This record gives sequence, C-alpha cells and structure tokens, in this order.
Amino acid sequence: MAHTESAKPAAANGITPTRSADYAEWYQQVIKAAELAENSVVRGCMVIRPWGYGIWERMQRELDDRIKATGHENAYFPLFIPLSFLQKEASHVDGFAKECAVVTHHRLELKDGKLVPAGELDEPVVVRPTSETIIGESFSRWVQSYRDLPLLINQWANVVRWEMRTRLFLRTTEFLWQEGHTAHATEKEALEETFKMLEVYREFMETVLCMPVFVGEKPVHERFPGAVKTYCCEAMMLDRKALQAGTSHFLGQNFAKSSGIQFTAEDSSTQFAHTTSWGVSTRLIGGVIMTHGDDDGLRLPPSLAPKQVVILPVTPNPETASAVLNACEELAAQIRKASFRGISVQVHVDKRDKRGGEKNWEWIKRGVPIRIEIGPRDVEKQSACISRRDKSHKEKLFIPFADVTAAVARILEEIQSNLFNEAKAHRDAHLTQDIKTYAELKAFFTPKNSEKPEIHGGFVRAKWCEDPASLTLLDELKISIRCIPLDQSGSTGKCILTGNEATVDVLIAKSY
Amino acid sequence: MAHTESAKPAAANGITPTRSADYAEWYQQVIKAAELAENSVVRGCMVIRPWGYGIWERMQRELDDRIKATGHENAYFPLFIPLSFLQKEASHVDGFAKECAVVTHHRLELKDGKLVPAGELDEPVVVRPTSETIIGESFSRWVQSYRDLPLLINQWANVVRWEMRTRLFLRTTEFLWQEGHTAHATEKEALEETFKMLEVYREFMETVLCMPVFVGEKPVHERFPGAVKTYCCEAMMLDRKALQAGTSHFLGQNFAKSSGIQFTAEDSSTQFAHTTSWGVSTRLIGGVIMTHGDDDGLRLPPSLAPKQVVILPVTPNPETASAVLNACEELAAQIRKASFRGISVQVHVDKRDKRGGEKNWEWIKRGVPIRIEIGPRDVEKQSACISRRDKSHKEKLFIPFADVTAAVARILEEIQSNLFNEAKAHRDAHLTQDIKTYAELKAFFTPKNSEKPEIHGGFVRAKWCEDPASLTLLDELKISIRCIPLDQSGSTGKCILTGNEATVDVLIAKSY
Repeated sequence: MAHTESAKPAAANGITPTRSADYAEWYQQVIKAAELAENSVVRGCMVIRPWGYGIWERMQRELDDRIKATGHENAYFPLFIPLSFLQKEASHVDGFAKECAVVTHHRLELKDGKLVPAGELDEPVVVRPTSETIIGESFSRWVQSYRDLPLLINQWANVVRWEMRTRLFLRTTEFLWQEGHTAHATEKEALEETFKMLEVYREFMETVLCMPVFVGEKPVHERFPGAVKTYCCEAMMLDRKALQAGTSHFLGQNFAKSSGIQFTAEDSSTQFAHTTSWGVSTRLIGGVIMTHGDDDGLRLPPSLAPKQVVILPVTPNPETASAVLNACEELAAQIRKASFRGISVQVHVDKRDKRGGEKNWEWIKRGVPIRIEIGPRDVEKQSACISRRDKSHKEKLFIPFADVTAAVARILEEIQSNLFNEAKAHRDAHLTQDIKTYAELKAFFTPKNSEKPEIHGGFVRAKWCEDPASLTLLDELKISIRCIPLDQSGSTGKCILTGNEATVDVLIAKSY
Repeated sequence: MAHTESAKPAAANGITPTRSADYAEWYQQVIKAAELAENSVVRGCMVIRPWGYGIWERMQRELDDRIKATGHENAYFPLFIPLSFLQKEASHVDGFAKECAVVTHHRLELKDGKLVPAGELDEPVVVRPTSETIIGESFSRWVQSYRDLPLLINQWANVVRWEMRTRLFLRTTEFLWQEGHTAHATEKEALEETFKMLEVYREFMETVLCMPVFVGEKPVHERFPGAVKTYCCEAMMLDRKALQAGTSHFLGQNFAKSSGIQFTAEDSSTQFAHTTSWGVSTRLIGGVIMTHGDDDGLRLPPSLAPKQVVILPVTPNPETASAVLNACEELAAQIRKASFRGISVQVHVDKRDKRGGEKNWEWIKRGVPIRIEIGPRDVEKQSACISRRDKSHKEKLFIPFADVTAAVARILEEIQSNLFNEAKAHRDAHLTQDIKTYAELKAFFTPKNSEKPEIHGGFVRAKWCEDPASLTLLDELKISIRCIPLDQSGSTGKCILTGNEATVDVLIAKSY
C-alpha cells in the first residue's frame, strides 16, 4: 500500500515536546502545529488563524442557536464606555480599572517625522472590558413598564482587558466572546434566568465540546465585580488543573440601580429591575485543546471540526492520478450527503502538491476526526483507507467505497462520544472525595517524585466552613475553591482547612 | 371583520414626517419606528437594536456563504494597531490619521474621587480604522513561497473612524463590517480577485438586498489610501443621491512592500506579493432603508427579514381566544415547513397583550414582508387575512388555511422581485444620459420650484476628460464623480465639464 505512516518514524510524535515532558510548551506547540492562533506584535493580543477561527465559528453557531432557542435576541452596543459609566458601580470599577485600554485622543499628528496622539478628548473612554454599564444605559431607556420585561439580549463582541501575563486563548488582552444581558421584573425570574443559562452552557460544553464540567457557585471573593452571585462551569484539563469555562451572574438590583433600570409594576409602583449577565469566550478553544489534545496534537470533536473528513489522494504515478482524484471527488460528494447533528458532513479533498505523509501529519495535528487516503490500488479495489483521530494513527480501516458514507456517519458519532467519555474518565480518575485534612490536601497538591511537577493533583471535593480567613491556607498551596457545586450533599463534616464543623461541599483545585 | 385598519385613520402614514416633507428626518424616524438602532451616549457610536442586528445577521449569513464559496477563510486579527505600523504606508496614514481613536494608557486610577488614565503605554496604539497594516504583518510571516499563494482571508470585525458628523448606519464612529484581504503571486491574479469580489458584492446587493448598483472604478482622488485602483458599487437612494455601498481595492505591491510580504517564486527569485482588500459594512442597512422604505416605514426584502411572516391573533372575546391562538400556532407550524431560498420561512406569532391595530402598525413599520391576521370569524371560515408590505396596508387577501403555505411561498418571491423592480425603475427614471453641458448639469442638480430641495437631481452619465483641475466645477455644485462605470461605451464625445474631447464615461451624482 502507498499509505503514509512510512513517512514518519513509528516512535515519533506529532508534537515535540510531549505533554509529560513539558506540558506548557506542548500546549503552545499544539496551537502552532494546528495553526490555530499566534501571538501578535501587539502586546497580549492574538491572531486567530483560519483553523482556530473555524472552530470558534462552530462554537458560535451552536451556542447562538441555543441562546436564541431560549428566547434571547442578539444586538450590538458600543465598543467604548465613558469613564463616568464605569465609575457608577463601585465594586465594578475596582474590578476592571486596573486593566483597561484607555482612549484619550481622536487623531494623530506628524511631529518631527513621528506620529503622535492629538485631539485630546474631553472625557476619555475605555475599550469595553465587559458591557454591563453601557448596556445598562440602553436598558434604562428601553424598560419603562413591566410589559417591557423580561428583556433578553445577547451580544457577540470583542472585549479588552490589559493583562500583564498572557497565554494564547486562555488569557489574552483582546478576546472574543458572547455576553448575555437580561432584565427581569422579579428576583425569582432573574435567578431562574441565571440558572437557565448556566445549564445552557453545561449542555453546550458537554454535548458540543465533549468537555464534562462541574457547575457551581463561586465563593464570595471570586464573584464578578458587582454581582450578587456568580455561577460557573469548571472543567478539568489534561494537567488536572481547573479551567473556568463560563460564568453566569445574578446581579440583583446593583446594576439596575447604578444604571437606572426602573419600571412601573403592575401595581403602579416604580421598581428597579433585577438583572443577569453571562458569558463564554475564545478561552473555550484553549479548553478544548487541553481536554482532548494528545502527543500528536489537537483532537477535535466532530461537532467542532471545521472539516470533519479530509480525503488525501495518493498519486504516485501521473497515469493513475486523474482516476484517483476523480474517485476522491466522487467519494467527497457522496459523504457530503450524510449529515452529522443536522448539518451536512464537511469534507475537504486535500489536493495540495505536497508529500502524502506530510499532509497526513498536518491533518493529524489539526485534529480532523476522519482521514481517508485513496491511492491507485484503492481505486482498483474500490476500497478506502480510513483513519480516525480518536485511535492510533497506525490503525487503519479498509472500507468499500459503497459503505464509506454510512461508516463516516457512524464513526463521527463514535468519536464524539469517545472523546467525551475519555475526558470524563480522566476527570473521574483525578477527582477525590477521600481527602479530609489539610495535611492530606497538601500532599495531594505536592508533586511526588514519580510525577512531573506540571501534571499532578486533581480536583478535591471536601467540606469547608466558609471562614474567609481560612483561604490563606489555600493560597499557600497555590490552589483555590473553584466552586460550591450545585449538587450539595447536605451532610455535615469537618472543614478541610480549619477542622471546624462544616456543611458546605466545595471543589478545590489548581486553576488557570 | 375584526381587522385592524380601523385603528388608524386611513389618511395617516406610519411615519411622520413623510419623505417629501422632510427626507432626512423621515430617515431617522424610520429607524426609530422600526427599532433598528439609536445613537449612543458615546459620541458617534450607535446601539444596533435586535431588529436592526437581525437584518445584519441575515446579511452576514448570505455574504459569508458567498465569501466562503469563492475560497476565502475567516480569521481574526487584533483590534489595536501600533502607530509604527500605520506609518509604514505613506498615503495610508494620510488617509486615516485624522480620525483615529488612540489608546495611550492601560489602566485607571482614582484621583480626588475621579477616574483618570494611568499606566502610559510606551507606544500608543490606534483602534483599527481598517486592517491592511496589521494583517500585512501576519501575511509577511505566512507567505514564504509561491505555494503559499493565493492567501484568501476575510475578517468580520468592528472598526473605528472618529467621524465629526455622524448619521445612524451611514456614518458612525464605530461600525461593523467584513474586510477581505488577499495576497497573490501575480498582478493579474490580484486584479482578477478584485473584480471577482466586486461581482460578489454586486450579485449580493441585487439578489439579497434587492438594491440595483452600478459597478465602476473610483477616480484617482477618491481611491482608498494606499490603493492602486479602487472599484465600487454605487446605489441610488430614494432621494436620488448615491450611496457607495461597497468597495474592492487592488493594492498592487504597495502594502506588500510596506509590510514585507515577499515570496520565493517558482524561478527562485524573491518577489513582493500583489494584494487586494474589499469590504462592506453596516452602512448597507442605511442603504436598504433608503432603497425600499416608504411613508409607512421600512420595507424589507424577504431575504433580509429576520421574520418573514408575522401572525397576529385577533382575540376580541375570551371564549374564542384559545381557538384563535391554536389556529395561529397551527398555521405558523405549517408555514415553517415552506422555505424561501433554501431556508425555512421565519414565522412569528405575536401574542403580546396589545391592541391589534397597534401591533399591526408596529410590524408595518418594521417592514415585515407578510402579515397574517386571524380572528374568531376567520377560524370559523378557515380562512386567513393576508397583507403584504409591498402593497397598501388596506389591501387584504383572504386565503383558505389549506392554501396559505403555498401562497406565502409565492408572495415572498413576488415581494423579493417587486422590491428590486421598483428600486430599478426608480433608478432608471432618474438616470440621464442626455445632459451634455455644464449649464445643463447645473440645472439638473438645482431644485426646481416644484421640487423639494432634499429630493431632486439623480445620476448623470456623461463624458469626462480626466483633467483633475476640472473637478472644482463639480465641487461647486456639491456633486462628484461616483465612478467610471465598467461598461464603458468606448465612444468619443465632449467633456461635460471642460468641453474638451473626452472618451471616458462617468457617473455623476450627489452622494452620502
């Protein structure tokens, strides 16, 4: 067979270094090899390359459908926020003032051959780090009567937080996200909305991203600045650290009061609305890499793959090349008739003038779920050579052309559930409820001699007495309470930090 | 019949003032009545409301499909551009330096209870007014060999140009757009790309927006800053002014040289790439308003309408209300099975607790193509009362429930072509080739006593000798050469400005 594993020594991996050799560098190299993104010359900003952006587009489409199905509408609000707006909500400004891009001028002038800012603004504006205050201004005008409620708005936008230490996708100065903003007549409805969107996120992350998450409430000190309650989805990465993958905030009347979102109730009284906000960002792409990646690079759930199937024509001889290319195109057309989760299967025939082995490895590293190689002998035999990204690259299936479409549909479903199950098994293996004392906790989060310092520990579910002073003990271990899971046991036990009586279950981990 | 025209006196219009009474104010009032957008507190920025954003989403989906079908991929580049980048291309900086939002600080501090900028940046950055320079930096790294070409990238993004005089959709400080950026091995290929995307725009504008456009080249002085050639689509608005609806630029090697986009050619020589850029923006929504609007408000082509059919239950008696609501939901479900241009027909049942006449007029003003009213007697007769937005609001069709779906599909197609044909007829009626002298030109662009000063003139197609000095004659009349149409007659005649011999046909108009 003219297939391609020969192009790569069997022992080598697609990515150098491997996860266990240098996890942080592995992450960067996966991004580079899959051409997902790169650091820009502008400090902390990234360029999202087509393959990375294609994954984001898939996330957008899937999440947007869910946001609309729950009654929300998209809108767009200004990029710029006047300083006076940010200042309205006291804890909000505390939370964001330290990392704002501030626009102070509105033109440039040449001075000694160099461009310098000119046209100073009367009031500087900041580039939105989040939009509660600017959207609140619109809401205050749109909401007059209880009949105008609930107001259910979502925005897809870029936001900027001037981060000092950045990392592609996980923490960047500019990132892309959606931010939902809603206003309700009652606290009860606003809380229901907060939980509804948390559940939309959980279902989206588990079904589309194949990324199991724990949902829970953030402890007081980790609330969104200005929120009454913050809820979150926490996922376990391959290095067993936690990634906060999405948040849903119940804002109470805090922002309604600072923005003046008031309405006339059915009983003719004037009341402040109760608001929520919730968001997920391009950080999720980092989460997908660190949930499913392996030492050969990215592995994409079929529901996120911009291309789900890549067909690689193998054309060693000019005489047979056109027969091979024709067979590839015919097979592609046939497979496109199949659908995966309601959308036509996305197939790409890679006809680039490059060595087969090189192309094959490019698609392995990019995480395409299914690769199909077709050479002259396959055309003779009317049989396709199929490789799946959830199995070893050496494992190949030979399937008659006539059965390929059905096989692809079946394999895509299998990969989707395999990736979820693998991620869930990994998480379950590194989640413990058996740690009861601080000494045990310290031991759990201290790498043993046999462990790589970058990959150790996991998630600890334990009791906590809710004494804020106890948190310094976590700080010492560079770990934190990720959330207070919604599924509380209700039992009483001893606080893992203080030994005091405690009723609350918390999830503790190192985090991104 | 319990239908709703009685709620509004027959003589009144949905919008006050009418177009002929005060065209500029009519435009603002249509936007307000249709809840498309509003001015933000941030100077020159707009809030795009859900109905307006829904139209933009329809435009995005349709155009994005076309951009991808022609081989382009989406990506995302940083919002911020270092001053040194902007400065690289001399005419580019001249074009944009006067209207840039400049970020000079990266945090805020409280000083005497007031937030002030702090953390001054070593090098200020500007918020992108367009992305040639920042994308060029990436291209210079991505392009090494002729095998990397063509590089075909598109970006959906927000951009900022600090405009002094703004107008919703038509000219705003921040706007949304797509900007295509491509690099090619040869001048020929880059020129082909420039024309290919111009044609994509033309087809999109005429087919989806129902907005006929002239395509042509911009005269030298109206080129994009840094371009070798700028091509454009020019549409005639209801007030007979021209709107530049989209542009496609052939950039030659100008940006390749300033950004260092070089490649090794097949003959091993090192060459600069040839690049293009092309874009359309939320300005198109302004174009749609001023192409199809009437004195009752917005009229939307079905291909742009977020909802194509609105069903209005008429429920005068509580006893019959549930039968009416059931009939409405059943009809909605039936109509959703039909499709318009490959997408399921979008139907909304408006069950809000408001007077029927009020709701009906809200949807008229929002430009929904088809309204269906159903009251108790309609349920008895199993017949629906249909109104179409391309006809008078008094004109109603009564169609048996069983035939409604087929009727909707047919009517949507009819409205789509009627709106295009009306716009084309308007344009043809106000396009003249009969004006040969400057005196006639002046008369044509001077309102007659019988005309409203805001609505007069039109498009003049005439000969021009290409002498730049002659353009002051146009400035005096506040008109300009909109483009040199691609379909040149090739004939020789006299220049409309100088009387000199001239071969070039130009299109002259007042413009936005």
